[in-house]
Amino acid sequence: MAELVDAPDSKSGFFGSAGSIPAPGTILKMEETMKYCSSCGGTISRKIPKDDNRKRTICDDCGLVHYQNPLIVVGCVAESDSKILLCKRSIEPRYGYWTIPAGFMELGETLAGGAARETLEEACANIEIGHQFASVDVIDAGQVHIFFTGKLIGGYGVGEESLDTQLFAEDEIPWDELAFHSGRFALKKYLEDRGQNNGVHFHELRRQPGAD
Amino acid sequence: MAELVDAPDSKSGFFGSAGSIPAPGTILKMEETMKYCSSCGGTISRKIPKDDNRKRTICDDCGLVHYQNPLIVVGCVAESDSKILLCKRSIEPRYGYWTIPAGFMELGETLAGGAARETLEEACANIEIGHQFASVDVIDAGQVHIFFTGKLIGGYGVGEESLDTQLFAEDEIPWDELAFHSGRFALKKYLEDRGQNNGVHFHELRRQPGAD
Repeated sequence: MAELVDAPDSKSGFFGSAGSIPAPGTILKMEETMKYCSSCGGTISRKIPKDDNRKRTICDDCGLVHYQNPLIVVGCVAESDSKILLCKRSIEPRYGYWTIPAGFMELGETLAGGAARETLEEACANIEIGHQFASVDVIDAGQVHIFFTGKLIGGYGVGEESLDTQLFAEDEIPWDELAFHSGRFALKKYLEDRGQNNGVHFHELRRQPGAD
Repeated sequence: MAELVDAPDSKSGFFGSAGSIPAPGTILKMEETMKYCSSCGGTISRKIPKDDNRKRTICDDCGLVHYQNPLIVVGCVAESDSKILLCKRSIEPRYGYWTIPAGFMELGETLAGGAARETLEEACANIEIGHQFASVDVIDAGQVHIFFTGKLIGGYGVGEESLDTQLFAEDEIPWDELAFHSGRFALKKYLEDRGQNNGVHFHELRRQPGAD
């Protein structure tokens, strides 16, 4: 089976992201890369603030605390005539592998709105969002992946981050060519639910020691 | 009825947060306050990067894109003998008002783990997490509030961010003294569910024009 990764991306900065999903190790990178206070330009240190219980990045000059918190990725399993819409990635990492339409939630939108926007951007598809059915904690990437059900409204196309977009029947899903562990989990649970809202299926992903 | 607010906090920095929940307007503050690249110390501008479709904060010198994305707040409605655990806040804003134990998800933990940690910190209570039942998009604060059910294991106490902690029967809940709109929504839906997992109840909060 082709190698899956926990969380991919091309367009990720170290302190937040757009597009698809940053690679594992992002947490360490954030701490290593931040050298200056973004408010006053002063140098920064890692220490525990008063009334807190963990190390933060703090400005040596103005004292501003630069908190770093997990990011949200939103995606949608969009269905049409019992087939599921998948996108073949045109960007690294996982170029050429298949994925559920998903990406970083943006400021100013809702979870469901973000999932719909990503589906529009990656598959040129309008969808009617159903319910949230899966959530994956991608610990080493500092992300939570939240997945919704959806119904395709009208047609679909190939967005800028995709090489191809297709509807797959259950027995056609390219399990060996899926890009991400979180998407594999979501697809599996989606199919198990068979259209029922059974609440949110949770899953936790951590990198294995020594894994890439 | 006492005034509710969408999302409170004391300990919020502009680029991420700890403890409880930052006040609305955080999104604007982030853009206004960021003046220097945290990687190289260069000046920054707001413009649309190549292959993107919205304005980002970009370093004029090294070109690093400083993305800003919504943050996750996790909370838990913890029950014991059909009573619900609430905390009276000892911090501003909403000092003296009652809240579900909740706060910012930290790097390195799961959604459920974060909800349990917040309950331990604010109410000195160990809980067994049940299922996710509510999610509130707090648009103007750039946050998503995610709520779990939980069962209290053993006793509880008064954490540093609380003046008091109490178990309330359904008809004792201090609806007029609740701190936050998101918590009010969560409590209402929790009681409507009556222990059933009916999936995630979604709600969207936006500030009214002219509101504080």
